[in-house]
Amino acid sequence: MDVKNIRAYGTVAADADLKQLEINRRGVTAKDVEIDILYCGVCHSDLHFARNDWGMTQYPVVPGHEIVGKVLKVGDDVNQYKVGDLVAVGCLVDSCRSCANCKNDLEQYCPEWVGTYGGYDKHLETNTHGGYSETIVVDEAFVLSVPENLDLAGIAPVLCAGITTWSPLRHWNVGKDSKVAVVGLGGLGHMAIKLADALGAHVTLFSRSTNKIDDAKALGADEIIISTDESQMQSAMGRFDVIIDTVPYEHDLNPYVGTLNTNGTLVVVGYLGPLDPMLVTVPLIMGRKSVAGSLIGGIAETQELLDFCGEHNITSDIEVINMQDINTAYERMLKSDVKYRFVIDMKSLKS
Amino acid sequence: MDVKNIRAYGTVAADADLKQLEINRRGVTAKDVEIDILYCGVCHSDLHFARNDWGMTQYPVVPGHEIVGKVLKVGDDVNQYKVGDLVAVGCLVDSCRSCANCKNDLEQYCPEWVGTYGGYDKHLETNTHGGYSETIVVDEAFVLSVPENLDLAGIAPVLCAGITTWSPLRHWNVGKDSKVAVVGLGGLGHMAIKLADALGAHVTLFSRSTNKIDDAKALGADEIIISTDESQMQSAMGRFDVIIDTVPYEHDLNPYVGTLNTNGTLVVVGYLGPLDPMLVTVPLIMGRKSVAGSLIGGIAETQELLDFCGEHNITSDIEVINMQDINTAYERMLKSDVKYRFVIDMKSLKS
Repeated sequence: MDVKNIRAYGTVAADADLKQLEINRRGVTAKDVEIDILYCGVCHSDLHFARNDWGMTQYPVVPGHEIVGKVLKVGDDVNQYKVGDLVAVGCLVDSCRSCANCKNDLEQYCPEWVGTYGGYDKHLETNTHGGYSETIVVDEAFVLSVPENLDLAGIAPVLCAGITTWSPLRHWNVGKDSKVAVVGLGGLGHMAIKLADALGAHVTLFSRSTNKIDDAKALGADEIIISTDESQMQSAMGRFDVIIDTVPYEHDLNPYVGTLNTNGTLVVVGYLGPLDPMLVTVPLIMGRKSVAGSLIGGIAETQELLDFCGEHNITSDIEVINMQDINTAYERMLKSDVKYRFVIDMKSLKS
Repeated sequence: MDVKNIRAYGTVAADADLKQLEINRRGVTAKDVEIDILYCGVCHSDLHFARNDWGMTQYPVVPGHEIVGKVLKVGDDVNQYKVGDLVAVGCLVDSCRSCANCKNDLEQYCPEWVGTYGGYDKHLETNTHGGYSETIVVDEAFVLSVPENLDLAGIAPVLCAGITTWSPLRHWNVGKDSKVAVVGLGGLGHMAIKLADALGAHVTLFSRSTNKIDDAKALGADEIIISTDESQMQSAMGRFDVIIDTVPYEHDLNPYVGTLNTNGTLVVVGYLGPLDPMLVTVPLIMGRKSVAGSLIGGIAETQELLDFCGEHNITSDIEVINMQDINTAYERMLKSDVKYRFVIDMKSLKS
């Protein structure tokens, strides 16, 4: 196996800052695409993983799963891509490809899916490393095509924040007659508003604070409900077909269930933390309502989203940073001090 | 308004036994059907309501919403029924008929639906009274047609226990390729097994005790999983498309969520009591699973079920009692000492 030594940014311990590291990338095998990484989005999961918040991190870890770049080299059997193509890689770089989930384009639910970082690279027999790096080598089946008309930095967060909200919007059939609500206005929430709006839905943001009203409207929300205001919550009872709950910490789901219409579904897409919420079941029964979860999206669905973004000229609202700013960016993320996603310009790592 | 005084069985206080009462029934208005009640099933809700377990009972109360009978008289504008027809009445006798739920044949979710007992009879300006009585007068829109080939006593529980399980089986598209599990083998559970089996699904019963295995298989279950056996539960992980949870008391939903397949739904149809369960959301996210609720069914769907029962020769397994035995029957129900539903032979009230 041909191996390349490249520059990356990562960490060697839960309590250490991220710093420049050298890592190995495999040479291209027959179905591989080698990608020059231009931009990489910064996801909250990157931070959780770097700091071992989920107790599963093996070090060193190189985060990053919102990757946009240009094809540098392709293996002999690659059909879909050629050198110079604009491509992207999201949260997964492989799966078993034979289970029912894989066969149904639901690779994200394959029990053997390989994460873009922290997974297992069977070729190198080591952990996979993510997009905080110069290049990445990925089987073409997990490489996506990027529309030429979009801002390349702004498209990066579509690979995780975008698909995580797109997949439930599509699965629960959101369209032009839908009434959609989004809980929380962060990286995921702002994409959920843009995408639901572009799908033609009436979009409402639930927010705890009044200072997000103008921003939410600019993103495409038709309405904002202040979730701490009892009378506003009361007036929203029974209204929504689908609620995308993006809030990644412990909170009460029951007030939102109350705002679902008959047959409505509340979809949790963020990790609510170690304390599980109480679920009041009577309101579910009294309106055939559901509480569901959803995880990123499959490869075909991610390509569908990228194409949709190209057609509707949608990208994420971002703040571009240099690789060397990542530790500051993590601290700012913890304070929700970003509109709405940091994206690393990878030139900064290469110079 | 013409009013008839008839015999019924009911109670005047939460702590009083049921006893014979006299109640008023309205005379038939233009769209009304007067029904001679032949059989009435005994639902657990009857007991809860008689004893004011839900804090909403107004006395006197005459329970009973699994009613089968014969048409005695019809109003001038009744089109669907004629004297002598076999008919049934379930849990509702009216609704607003103009809201979105009513227009979508989901009268059970109409905010103004009128319960067969404990509702409000706008003609008599008093509470509605249920099927523990000689006769009932119901608008034809809420009267159902009963197939001639079925045992009339056995069909009564279809009107509540049956439709409560049929509606979610149909809504979540159970068919011949489905893997369905049923939690609990009581009135609802035994109907869920029969109906899912008749729809062609592979049916599994979750039960706490091994002594229900033979009964469950006789009802149509392909398999029984003992829910207190860790290894059996472990082997069931990720298997079911739909789980109908019929257990009407506090219990942990999370072990059952674990046994759902990708896209699977756990449907709660019983009242879990005042303590709300904790819901672990990560397993929902990791397999796009849902926890939902469902309430009885609409009128058109109940007719669909009665027709299906006629075609497949399905009735409830019952124990027929006299009206005078109702207090003993309630005590036995509290001990789950019935296979699987008591049905009152209304001759006993009339003689």
